[in-house]
Amino acid sequence: MGNTVERWGLFEVEIHGPKDGNPFTEQQLTAVFRGKNEEVRVSGFYDGEGVYKARFMPSFEGEYTYETSGSFPEAETAGSFLVTSPSEGNHGPMRVVNTCHFAYEDTTPYYSVGTTCYAWAHQPEEVHRQTLEELSKGYFNKMRFCVFPKHYIHNFRDPETFPYEGTPVDHSNLSEETFTYEADFSGNAWDFTRFCPEHFRRIERCILELQEREIEADIIVMHPYDRWGFSQMTREQDDLYWRYVIARFSAYRNVWWSLANEYDLLRAKTVEDWEHYAALLCELDPYHHLRSIHNCMAFYDHSRPWITHCSLQRQDLYRHVEYTDEYRVRWGKPVVWDEISYEGNIDMGWGNISGEELTRRFWEASLRGGYAGHGETFLDPEHDILWWSHGGPLHGESPARIRFLHQILEETPGYGLCRGQGAFDETVGVPDSPGFLMGAEGGYEIHYYGFGRPSFRDFIKPEGRWQAEIIDTWEMTVTDAGVHSGKFRIALPGKEYMAVRLKRIAE
Amino acid sequence: MGNTVERWGLFEVEIHGPKDGNPFTEQQLTAVFRGKNEEVRVSGFYDGEGVYKARFMPSFEGEYTYETSGSFPEAETAGSFLVTSPSEGNHGPMRVVNTCHFAYEDTTPYYSVGTTCYAWAHQPEEVHRQTLEELSKGYFNKMRFCVFPKHYIHNFRDPETFPYEGTPVDHSNLSEETFTYEADFSGNAWDFTRFCPEHFRRIERCILELQEREIEADIIVMHPYDRWGFSQMTREQDDLYWRYVIARFSAYRNVWWSLANEYDLLRAKTVEDWEHYAALLCELDPYHHLRSIHNCMAFYDHSRPWITHCSLQRQDLYRHVEYTDEYRVRWGKPVVWDEISYEGNIDMGWGNISGEELTRRFWEASLRGGYAGHGETFLDPEHDILWWSHGGPLHGESPARIRFLHQILEETPGYGLCRGQGAFDETVGVPDSPGFLMGAEGGYEIHYYGFGRPSFRDFIKPEGRWQAEIIDTWEMTVTDAGVHSGKFRIALPGKEYMAVRLKRIAE
Repeated sequence: MGNTVERWGLFEVEIHGPKDGNPFTEQQLTAVFRGKNEEVRVSGFYDGEGVYKARFMPSFEGEYTYETSGSFPEAETAGSFLVTSPSEGNHGPMRVVNTCHFAYEDTTPYYSVGTTCYAWAHQPEEVHRQTLEELSKGYFNKMRFCVFPKHYIHNFRDPETFPYEGTPVDHSNLSEETFTYEADFSGNAWDFTRFCPEHFRRIERCILELQEREIEADIIVMHPYDRWGFSQMTREQDDLYWRYVIARFSAYRNVWWSLANEYDLLRAKTVEDWEHYAALLCELDPYHHLRSIHNCMAFYDHSRPWITHCSLQRQDLYRHVEYTDEYRVRWGKPVVWDEISYEGNIDMGWGNISGEELTRRFWEASLRGGYAGHGETFLDPEHDILWWSHGGPLHGESPARIRFLHQILEETPGYGLCRGQGAFDETVGVPDSPGFLMGAEGGYEIHYYGFGRPSFRDFIKPEGRWQAEIIDTWEMTVTDAGVHSGKFRIALPGKEYMAVRLKRIAE
Repeated sequence: MGNTVERWGLFEVEIHGPKDGNPFTEQQLTAVFRGKNEEVRVSGFYDGEGVYKARFMPSFEGEYTYETSGSFPEAETAGSFLVTSPSEGNHGPMRVVNTCHFAYEDTTPYYSVGTTCYAWAHQPEEVHRQTLEELSKGYFNKMRFCVFPKHYIHNFRDPETFPYEGTPVDHSNLSEETFTYEADFSGNAWDFTRFCPEHFRRIERCILELQEREIEADIIVMHPYDRWGFSQMTREQDDLYWRYVIARFSAYRNVWWSLANEYDLLRAKTVEDWEHYAALLCELDPYHHLRSIHNCMAFYDHSRPWITHCSLQRQDLYRHVEYTDEYRVRWGKPVVWDEISYEGNIDMGWGNISGEELTRRFWEASLRGGYAGHGETFLDPEHDILWWSHGGPLHGESPARIRFLHQILEETPGYGLCRGQGAFDETVGVPDSPGFLMGAEGGYEIHYYGFGRPSFRDFIKPEGRWQAEIIDTWEMTVTDAGVHSGKFRIALPGKEYMAVRLKRIAE
């Protein structure tokens, strides 16, 4: 205990030091962790009540030592610990692999099927419990959520905790009717130099709860849905926040950094600001967690070297995930569609598509070699609990279908799919690994028909014998359709959302 | 009889002349028709069995005279006739009005809801009868069909008649399996200088049957679906054909000229050819019937002055009719989406969308100030009769919805709709008549939500009182939703394909 941690686990040094003055700005703690294969230097952070912490995620097994130092006498400590092999389900942090795909550090492929509960970290316990219950069902393996609380339609209640000491603006007279992006910040009284550690511990609980369920934590560090002024702090205040967030969260292996949601709605911030935060992140996160920045209207310049993958919101109502293949070529990075409208029935077009349509978008994105994200926005007049924001119970039909898609993706040979050659009226996903499994035993193709309803499809395979399967992406079934060669016909039920999978049989 | 014809009716002079030699190429007949307001010169044509005809469509009421002359003595005739007022349902030929819309010559607005039965003119009587039965139900007010017979999948049977004397290539060994666009023309033996008048009389019967049902005849003069060589004739042979077609069909008031279907698949023809046919048409059709040319892949240059409206096939699977507003601006002409996938279940993506999706495309096109076309392609293993080609019985769910849309369009103030201002997630159709009915009693808006499923929508009308109606475009209902002003909310059922119509009430 304490002196043992598993590979990619979190090792924490806790030191008791001064409480007086403002420890967040007046005290410092740094730590160096040394093993045979790495030496990692991190900043610690103040966790309140005189407690200081420094966290570390070891990337190798074996003996490690550490030394801490800082601005107060108790900061000088040293010790050693043993890093053991990872436990089951611990595959390490996420990496980009094969240009447009993901794998865990231990090379296990990861096919992203995300969801979004922006403010789930800030909800009462009962809602939180319901959220975890849904997440335990394995529908999703990535969750986007915010560090700061959220002010938005259906989101006027105060969060359980605030990130800073102080008092928030009164929200009792807020309503859907009067909501505007230009909030009145004047009623707030915050000390932006004093964090509320409990708020950040709530976030960490969420990160760990996701980790336990093998769900990546796509942490949105900044966002525009604000009535408290957190989106309009000074550069100095922002830096203090970024440094605190990085010091606290970096050592959790399932963390991804989303610099912002709808960065272009943060009117007070410029591209220079985002580039500055990105530079901080590159400097201070020793584990190089994935980094992205999510748009509302205009895509960020995803060619920037610090961006590991493109976190996209659709720019058009009608054609969006169908651009996945083009965007892969444009940016040479994984394409992750984190907002493509949510299943639901609210008034807004971004939150009222059917489960069928959201599932179709997932398949289109995935077969073209990208990834998609879910959200759910069903009106809930009694409690006003909407998954997309609060979590809570799921009501939609898409989550089970998204889990089924993930099962299919898990059967991909190699690392990920890309769009293969096919007719104009189908989307064909094939393995995206040049030279990988393309020999006699390697053919693998998924032909997807989306909203088309073919009663049959013809195939021509001049070489080899092919196992055909019919995938009903809505009914979640895979049906054997025989072994074929040459020109052959596969009968289909003439309904939407069907696919044919062909696997070449080893000779 | 004979000496009386209604305005925009067809007046025909019949002359008996020589049968010997080749009357189609060796004899000529011209006629001049004179009334108080017009003098029209037309070419006659040989109708077989020694019969020559000259046809005329009078544009005015009153006394007319005519004179005929030609290459044979009997051609010299003269006479007079009376043009009476048009009968009910006769509104004259179609014209472009208000830049992007249509109206009959008598100024009655026309909101195009088309369909396509390419080869219905070439089918046996029983299929023909079934087609008429469906057309009598008022689903459509435009029909696209071909003069030449069609060779294509599901279309290997010989037509009832051929346009030329001769013998066709044997088709007994043709099948879906071996179909290719590069047909073998070698087995044909045609005399391209001798028309088969019966074939053209069949087309004329169709034109009249459509006219009786107030359906415009969008005649496809050339097309690429050919195993007989009709798409690869010489310039001289083509000219003979175009002149014959124009002489025969021009005087039918409901004729529209579609120079070709999928012109870009007619490999033997060049842009120079199309411009030449267009020039012939402009010269020889004295009534200036509407003229268009329909693409497969590449749009023709619709800015050409002879093109009266854009006859479009969608260029993308996912976004197409949603470009209607852009194309109206690009070309400044009516935008008619004649091919946007058909309701059905064949293997091809152009023929297997749902009735819901086809209906959605009609609404999107129409509310943006364009027009759409229907087609139906359900597999029929027993008879292989598919509406899109043969006519016959309809099986789909969209025709009734298209008729309902037409009823709504008929209620448009002025001539046609255009896209109005609205939120990003709705398509708003408003009257496309600057200054027309925009005063106190003039507001008219249809807000359409397509695949969105809003449970309510909010509206802001600072001025006036507005009658709200909920249109269920699928269930074909219009429900009163009360009179409102200022900011108001309309409750909706949270399902797809709904619209809200707002009409300003006269103060």
